[in-house]
Amino acid sequence: MRWARFESNGQPSYCVIEGDTVIPVRGSPFEAWERTPERLRLADVKLLVPVVPPTFYAAGMNYAEHVMEVAEKLGRKPDLPPNADAGYRTVNALIAQGETIMIPADATDLVQYEAELVVVIGRRCKHLTRENALSAVLGYTIGNDVSERTWQKSDRTLWRAKNTDTFKPMGPWIETDVKLEDLKTTVRLNREEKITFETNKMIHGVIDFLVNMTTCLTLYPGDVLWMGTEGATANMKHGDICEIEITGIGTLTNPVVREGLGQP
Amino acid sequence: MRWARFESNGQPSYCVIEGDTVIPVRGSPFEAWERTPERLRLADVKLLVPVVPPTFYAAGMNYAEHVMEVAEKLGRKPDLPPNADAGYRTVNALIAQGETIMIPADATDLVQYEAELVVVIGRRCKHLTRENALSAVLGYTIGNDVSERTWQKSDRTLWRAKNTDTFKPMGPWIETDVKLEDLKTTVRLNREEKITFETNKMIHGVIDFLVNMTTCLTLYPGDVLWMGTEGATANMKHGDICEIEITGIGTLTNPVVREGLGQP
Repeated sequence: MRWARFESNGQPSYCVIEGDTVIPVRGSPFEAWERTPERLRLADVKLLVPVVPPTFYAAGMNYAEHVMEVAEKLGRKPDLPPNADAGYRTVNALIAQGETIMIPADATDLVQYEAELVVVIGRRCKHLTRENALSAVLGYTIGNDVSERTWQKSDRTLWRAKNTDTFKPMGPWIETDVKLEDLKTTVRLNREEKITFETNKMIHGVIDFLVNMTTCLTLYPGDVLWMGTEGATANMKHGDICEIEITGIGTLTNPVVREGLGQP
Repeated sequence: MRWARFESNGQPSYCVIEGDTVIPVRGSPFEAWERTPERLRLADVKLLVPVVPPTFYAAGMNYAEHVMEVAEKLGRKPDLPPNADAGYRTVNALIAQGETIMIPADATDLVQYEAELVVVIGRRCKHLTRENALSAVLGYTIGNDVSERTWQKSDRTLWRAKNTDTFKPMGPWIETDVKLEDLKTTVRLNREEKITFETNKMIHGVIDFLVNMTTCLTLYPGDVLWMGTEGATANMKHGDICEIEITGIGTLTNPVVREGLGQP
């Protein structure tokens, strides 16, 4: 099942997507809901980010090759994370399917995509076990953890490197029927394939994070956890189109514009 | 003017507080609002955290003596922050005036208060200037940035050290009429004064943060920014009462319980 949010008379509304058909619902996937009789064409609606999370968690470094790559770029020793310690990103930076990644005028050319699986929490939970952890997951979507690498090197908290407005594309929708071990992530820049990797080949997996995090914190409906990215990443420049596909979920597509250069 | 939130028939509702009188309002301080004719006694209402922030920012290290103290505790070289780079805390950890700080059973004895001024953003804003930055502030409240010091040393992201459930008391209300340069912060543990400091003697002040942050991110109504703490901090133990007073705002009071030890 595919959950999305779209703009309906200027207001956000949840919907179910079946093929190219959008079925608006009353309510939300996190509470009671029912289908309305209305039917729309997917091409005719403006999708929003599929959820605005109460807390926006991010695994950070969570794939072995990416840890090596980033360490080399930053001139540091690679440091594999010993624990599933979640970090944070911020909602100001979220943009939806099709919206523009805006590179600030003062950013360097080192603005790069990071293709990530996103876990969407479905219910309030604490003290999850390895056995029941996945039952707290509503479904999965796709995130692009856009990063300015020079700011990543200099920022004490990554606030600007990772959380500049428009640096967190997320979508297009939440897919509830997912087999993690079957997923493949592919990044394309202007239709050219840059990398393909097994999505679930993480250092610490979804279950590891959910169990570890909920030892001491409560997760809430709509919280998201971005799972990190693999391998080398490349620069995105004015006029590029960045696509991230995760098989079985969909494709997140966003154009890239550099501030001050006008429309590409 | 004092804005608070309280529980009304199981639902959160904004109110204005005048002396010991609670005046419920329709709406919120972030949009249109009006006073209702109802009047309640402050002693009779359950206060909630005064706002649930879309993003929960924290200055982190932002007072010179505290930087020295923490460096010594962690066995590191003191490192004054060169820029007003904001970090993050999380909403799961928020508790209100009077609610209990719950120390997890597996925490060490090094669970400590940190008394902080909290800035509450009143309107959507970006590219603030030194001249107009404070016009984006609705008002100020008080935060206790409870921290487990051994986890702070070992966590890659401070997720557990700082964001364990109940580790972020905030309140009791938002005071809109504040002269930053007049404020004094005092911490009392079981009525014994532990420290008093000039609240505004920060390394990077409120205006510095708001101007720097909004160079690349949009702040939203209800976002909060915790400004850091000064000096040495002490352990809180089962049965303690922690009070943080900031003159002109109020006093945030929370009891402390260690999990598994029952009621003090």
